[in-house]
Amino acid sequence: MSSRYLSFRCSVPWLILLLQTLLLIHSFLGFPGVGDIYSPSSFYPEFQDVSHMVLFGFGFFLMVLRRYGFSSTGFNFLLVVLGVQCSVLVEDLLVFLREQQNEPGMESLAKAVVSMTAVVISTGAVLGKANPVQLIVMTLVELIIFYVSRCINSKFLQVPEKLTLMHVHLFGAYFGLALTSRFPGPPPGLDKNRSTPKSDLFSVLGTVFVWVFWPSFNSILANSKMEPVLNTYLALAVSAVAAFMLSALTSKDGKFRMSQVRSALLAGGVAISHTAHRIQHPWIAMILGLLASAISVLGSHCLQRCFNPALKLQDTSGVHFTFGLPAVLGAVAAVVLSAVEDGIETQWNDLSSLGYLIFVDLGAFCQTISTALITGLITGLILNIKLLKAVHVSKYFDDQFFWEVSFQTISD
Amino acid sequence: MSSRYLSFRCSVPWLILLLQTLLLIHSFLGFPGVGDIYSPSSFYPEFQDVSHMVLFGFGFFLMVLRRYGFSSTGFNFLLVVLGVQCSVLVEDLLVFLREQQNEPGMESLAKAVVSMTAVVISTGAVLGKANPVQLIVMTLVELIIFYVSRCINSKFLQVPEKLTLMHVHLFGAYFGLALTSRFPGPPPGLDKNRSTPKSDLFSVLGTVFVWVFWPSFNSILANSKMEPVLNTYLALAVSAVAAFMLSALTSKDGKFRMSQVRSALLAGGVAISHTAHRIQHPWIAMILGLLASAISVLGSHCLQRCFNPALKLQDTSGVHFTFGLPAVLGAVAAVVLSAVEDGIETQWNDLSSLGYLIFVDLGAFCQTISTALITGLITGLILNIKLLKAVHVSKYFDDQFFWEVSFQTISD
Amino acid sequence: MSSRYLSFRCSVPWLILLLQTLLLIHSFLGFPGVGDIYSPSSFYPEFQDVSHMVLFGFGFFLMVLRRYGFSSTGFNFLLVVLGVQCSVLVEDLLVFLREQQNEPGMESLAKAVVSMTAVVISTGAVLGKANPVQLIVMTLVELIIFYVSRCINSKFLQVPEKLTLMHVHLFGAYFGLALTSRFPGPPPGLDKNRSTPKSDLFSVLGTVFVWVFWPSFNSILANSKMEPVLNTYLALAVSAVAAFMLSALTSKDGKFRMSQVRSALLAGGVAISHTAHRIQHPWIAMILGLLASAISVLGSHCLQRCFNPALKLQDTSGVHFTFGLPAVLGAVAAVVLSAVEDGIETQWNDLSSLGYLIFVDLGAFCQTISTALITGLITGLILNIKLLKAVHVSKYFDDQFFWEVSFQTISD
Repeated sequence: MSSRYLSFRCSVPWLILLLQTLLLIHSFLGFPGVGDIYSPSSFYPEFQDVSHMVLFGFGFFLMVLRRYGFSSTGFNFLLVVLGVQCSVLVEDLLVFLREQQNEPGMESLAKAVVSMTAVVISTGAVLGKANPVQLIVMTLVELIIFYVSRCINSKFLQVPEKLTLMHVHLFGAYFGLALTSRFPGPPPGLDKNRSTPKSDLFSVLGTVFVWVFWPSFNSILANSKMEPVLNTYLALAVSAVAAFMLSALTSKDGKFRMSQVRSALLAGGVAISHTAHRIQHPWIAMILGLLASAISVLGSHCLQRCFNPALKLQDTSGVHFTFGLPAVLGAVAAVVLSAVEDGIETQWNDLSSLGYLIFVDLGAFCQTISTALITGLITGLILNIKLLKAVHVSKYFDDQFFWEVSFQTISD
Repeated sequence: MSSRYLSFRCSVPWLILLLQTLLLIHSFLGFPGVGDIYSPSSFYPEFQDVSHMVLFGFGFFLMVLRRYGFSSTGFNFLLVVLGVQCSVLVEDLLVFLREQQNEPGMESLAKAVVSMTAVVISTGAVLGKANPVQLIVMTLVELIIFYVSRCINSKFLQVPEKLTLMHVHLFGAYFGLALTSRFPGPPPGLDKNRSTPKSDLFSVLGTVFVWVFWPSFNSILANSKMEPVLNTYLALAVSAVAAFMLSALTSKDGKFRMSQVRSALLAGGVAISHTAHRIQHPWIAMILGLLASAISVLGSHCLQRCFNPALKLQDTSGVHFTFGLPAVLGAVAAVVLSAVEDGIETQWNDLSSLGYLIFVDLGAFCQTISTALITGLITGLILNIKLLKAVHVSKYFDDQFFWEVSFQTISD
Repeated sequence: MSSRYLSFRCSVPWLILLLQTLLLIHSFLGFPGVGDIYSPSSFYPEFQDVSHMVLFGFGFFLMVLRRYGFSSTGFNFLLVVLGVQCSVLVEDLLVFLREQQNEPGMESLAKAVVSMTAVVISTGAVLGKANPVQLIVMTLVELIIFYVSRCINSKFLQVPEKLTLMHVHLFGAYFGLALTSRFPGPPPGLDKNRSTPKSDLFSVLGTVFVWVFWPSFNSILANSKMEPVLNTYLALAVSAVAAFMLSALTSKDGKFRMSQVRSALLAGGVAISHTAHRIQHPWIAMILGLLASAISVLGSHCLQRCFNPALKLQDTSGVHFTFGLPAVLGAVAAVVLSAVEDGIETQWNDLSSLGYLIFVDLGAFCQTISTALITGLITGLILNIKLLKAVHVSKYFDDQFFWEVSFQTISD
């Protein structure tokens, strides 16, 4: 065992060091001087909200396993701070290749934090199974592929560049699902992948943070902030109400199930993220929130009973029904909305332009999801090679493998 | 027992669904288009602070019972997101009846969140005793009555419309107290209405949030933000200092008592809320904070020993001395302040106008408190009819009745 | 024992009352009217961030001991709200003596909250050993001395007045260390100064808050906010990445150690605080963050093995390597940076001006650290006189001595 730990020491720190050195060199060469950047100072509060949401909210949201609290928050923190820097690097490099001018500074950081949400969501799918080396490699690969997928969307399908970022939940969820299918499942007797009321409370704490800051997340890159904020708030409110309703309806004995409520609470925010900036009537946002919550609760039933066992998937923190399905709904809603809007505008005369519009939107959606699935599978295969020292299944879901914690005190 | 659960399933979700459908129809018919609304974009940070304070702060502030953590935060969340939408509906409807024009959008939402504080406070009084159906009915009734009471104040007593909202703590506390008096007390042997250090820590966490965001709460509707922010901060600071002082003075052995400190910390914010926008000298705000803290600590002693047993009240989380008494102090201080200000201005010559001023302020105060008490009593009677399936006293203060939690793990 | 408690009651509340009365009198006499103050309304969000960071972030950051949760957060809250008022008083008084005009209102409060960070850091060093009376006396003495030290720096060494505040971490850490050396160490067998996973999780929660709000802390008093925000964020990000790297490298078996990661996460923010406003190239900020993290992790090893046992220091929450060493690094970096900048500007011709610049910066640093150490020692001696009833070593690290908690429930 001891040799395993020692070899673990020989990989994680050096990998991080290598990356950090690269990032430093990049910042030395390429990062603009501070004087040139950070255009609007009113931008900072939203940036901080999103940073708070990703670091704190998601960190504690993922704390669903009873013996995995340190790793949930700690690794989330590590991946975000590392990934944000990598994301800036990736964007600068590829921008350089495309010979474009990148907007510098704070906006670049904001985009990086938003991109990181994909990684955080994917982490949720392999929560407790991947070691830090695997997670860091995953972060790098996922950021690059997500950036490439965004480039395809914006270059070949003419999706506005800022809107391509809003596929972040879709990409993250399906990348994570494809990835986790390549990890061996836990042994049947293992009870460490349960939650306790204590870990659930911490997770609720994180969920409330994510919920409260979601309007900032959806509005951070928008030109006009008023529509995204209001639409997101309404969609979230309706999906929260529906979460309680549907959880009581579908559970045994009519009780609420915390894990379900927690997922469905956030579904509204995911579903609206793609259309928040252009919905003109609040009732559309509210209907979308309702549908998202319904799809999340029903999805959690169907997936856990039929889909996951059939595909031998094990989606630790339920990212498929928390982020995946609502994001699909959001993408479909975006297609329908833009078709209807365009249809009304042209009084349903210009059907070829309508068809083109639908083709483009559907194309971007299909491209994103298929790229996520395929590259997720490949990444999953790469991550399980010997070199990266995958965690043995008996060590799943346990802080003790990665953190110094005393045995006696963790009994909770 | 099982039948009870099943019947519970037949009520909560359908009630929520009914309400949500109503709200959707209303938003379809009446809600303004997004383009017309959300005037100042600088309004959003304060709105988010208040939303954070009500959802997160109060949610965790109420986590005082050792086996009621899920319900404290979960039901608080449900009631707030449902109530905010209902409150917008109620306001729009009654505005429609009064043939006025309502200010649309974000400000309407902000008012709704502020109004919800009354419901949250009332929830604190019946914490652990009411089931979700009762809580939802209570939310609806209380919001309507609070709106009517505000209308009376602004129409007949010429209180400025925004100021009527600041009776929210007064109304919430006494409505909740009158309500809880109609609920049967817990059986003597029950020890589930204790707190543990763990639940107390979570409650402290929520309290700090409420404390930090209170200046935003008191300034959100003010025209000029500088006075309310500064006055509220000073009043809160002094009341926090006094909370520690008085807790050590009045407790056995001179130790601090966390539940007392927690209540008295917030008393200053409650007391100042009615006058924060017009106090010109910081020392008045500080004195008010000191008095509020004193009244809260002394009140907690007297009420729990004499008043509550005599009236057979059981005020689970102490809303009477946390919000009720300081709000009374605040209302009285408002009367005194406006009398003195007017007196100084007219050099105490125009005593009839002074008398009228005092009459109006006192009238608004008496109207609010008596409406709260009477309607609270009636609501309490309604809530305890057979139809709503009141929780049996032996099931009080227990998450297991409403949430799926495993027996073994909750032992804490 | 009982007599001890009673006598404790006779000191804490009266001391607080005395202070609060003084502060009220001061605010009656000297505080400007609300109308005159609170210049820019856009100032409030940053103020709230810093207030949140100091009250909530540091309060929970200090929750490292398994039976000291109430005291960690509670006393932190008491000291901050009391200290902020005292700090305003001290500043006003000394400004009065120097016959200057003080900038009134919100900015004065902001400076007071920033100054309080010194006290909060010092509290971390004596965490669990000092009783409330000692802590309050310490707060007063430290605030006055810190203000005097700042005056010397700004008057005799021409350091810009706002920059003198940024020595706050340096002063707080070394004052606290000198102070704690005068407290007797805990008896060998005591195991209450351990942390549990639960207390560590709460501490992580606070740490994330401090991390997220640090850019606001470093930019609150700056004229231009863009540089400090961006530089601080980058320094923090790099120091967080390095924290994980170095913790895995230096620990047994290559595991992460939470207490180390927690300290090194924040080191970047400390080190950059003195230069955040004037670094023009992001890579300098990143290098500084890396060095700060390294010095913190290495420091924690060396100090705990060699330095602390030799000097019989017991630094409960590790303020020496969390705040002390990175602050020294930051001060040295400031000297080097300004020397290089000046050198480049004058093309290394005007060596006498360069020498003067270095002399002034080094002088300010040496003056601050030596004042902190000497007065800390003296304060430590004063605090341990009979009158202040020092806690007996067997009662160290225990909430039960100060708070009403039931024995059975605290077993965790």
